[in-house]
Amino acid sequence: MTQQDSEQYRARKQFYEQMLTVYGRKPVLEALQDENLPAYRLHLADSNRKDGIIRDIQALADKRNIETQFHSREALARISRNGKQDQGVALDLQLPGYRDIKTLSEPLPGDCRLLALDRITNPQNLGMIVRSIAASGITGLLLPKTGCASLGPLVIKASAGTLFKAPIYHCQELPDTLSTLKARGCRVATLSSHASHSLLEWQPEGPTVYVLGNETEGVSRKVSQLSDVSLAIPMHNGVESLNVAVTAALIAFKH
Amino acid sequence: MTQQDSEQYRARKQFYEQMLTVYGRKPVLEALQDENLPAYRLHLADSNRKDGIIRDIQALADKRNIETQFHSREALARISRNGKQDQGVALDLQLPGYRDIKTLSEPLPGDCRLLALDRITNPQNLGMIVRSIAASGITGLLLPKTGCASLGPLVIKASAGTLFKAPIYHCQELPDTLSTLKARGCRVATLSSHASHSLLEWQPEGPTVYVLGNETEGVSRKVSQLSDVSLAIPMHNGVESLNVAVTAALIAFKH
Repeated sequence: MTQQDSEQYRARKQFYEQMLTVYGRKPVLEALQDENLPAYRLHLADSNRKDGIIRDIQALADKRNIETQFHSREALARISRNGKQDQGVALDLQLPGYRDIKTLSEPLPGDCRLLALDRITNPQNLGMIVRSIAASGITGLLLPKTGCASLGPLVIKASAGTLFKAPIYHCQELPDTLSTLKARGCRVATLSSHASHSLLEWQPEGPTVYVLGNETEGVSRKVSQLSDVSLAIPMHNGVESLNVAVTAALIAFKH
Repeated sequence: MTQQDSEQYRARKQFYEQMLTVYGRKPVLEALQDENLPAYRLHLADSNRKDGIIRDIQALADKRNIETQFHSREALARISRNGKQDQGVALDLQLPGYRDIKTLSEPLPGDCRLLALDRITNPQNLGMIVRSIAASGITGLLLPKTGCASLGPLVIKASAGTLFKAPIYHCQELPDTLSTLKARGCRVATLSSHASHSLLEWQPEGPTVYVLGNETEGVSRKVSQLSDVSLAIPMHNGVESLNVAVTAALIAFKH
């Protein structure tokens, strides 16, 4: 491979890593209607009837100069990765801040602050978290593809248009990625209602990844085994927990 | 009036000031199902057919030893204050932390910190704010009856059962109450995206009421005329605003 080839390869790889594919007729229509969302390519199944919402989707894509490709139902299911729910429609969004965690610079800077989510399944909460992360200026959100809500239309809506501005690092399995980050010198701080250290007083030293667990179950066992420090937010009036999006904002704006 | 009479009067007045009346068949049923919510009295219209959900509501009230009173439709509408939507059912909740702002101690303590809401109409956001206020330990939420979402079933749900634990001061019109608080030595700090002071760095001196405005329009003109200081949360990545419940939490946990 020549140097030029390898640069082209890297650029193409990065381009595809920043791609987020949404699917379903209404979600795709809404994504196209949001001029802030940089849509790259529309995919339609050959079998779609060209009326109603499909006609609207295609007209909107044409108006925005977005390329449309036609596929067999099977090929479309491979693109959407959800043939049962794609309704013959998928749309590639190109999110500038959406990257593989492996692209994080080496060595990790001392002020690297990540917020990782462990099994956050509510799309409204995920959207609010994306919005707070984008606004806060911390290094980024670490979002595993396994176990969390996917970045679909409900998340886009709850993020109030900030999804395409937010620094989001994707990974497959959270525990594996946390292990790799630890090996790279990153401390793992898990949030837990039973912890003795207060988040509000604790000061991170060096690169740190905070991990927020599921609202009812907390962080998973595998993740808590990787924890270097466990932090709690002090509660008054007998309240047991905060909304997870509120906790995320308190972490993100701590810095 | 004897001293005993006047004490009885005060106690009764306080009791009624802490009362919150919810209405509608499903909301009342759900409130009764939540054992954490201290229900005081069930009101039913004579005209209700005694079947289905009405029978379930009455059975649940009996099981919890909650008194049931029967009224004409007109009398019930005076209790619910919403004859169009009460569906012949209302329930009085007795919230220990729900009080008239006039009951706030005199003089105001130096560490008095209130969060006032100006036209926050989304019940999900209001519920999340109630939860954060309760957990934070600040003096309380100042909730005007005019212009904000009322403390109905959607708020109860979004508060995750914390509504009955939260210190909430009610008032009628926010501008009038802010004027009174100012006359009592309280500073008014309004949140605004255009402000030059950062909320994260600003330190309050003496009793302070923070005011959060409507997500799209900000604080109203009348309120901003009463503002002593205007505060912003610094934003990154071109994000214009945070979710109002997130902003509320950042204020409440600042202290």
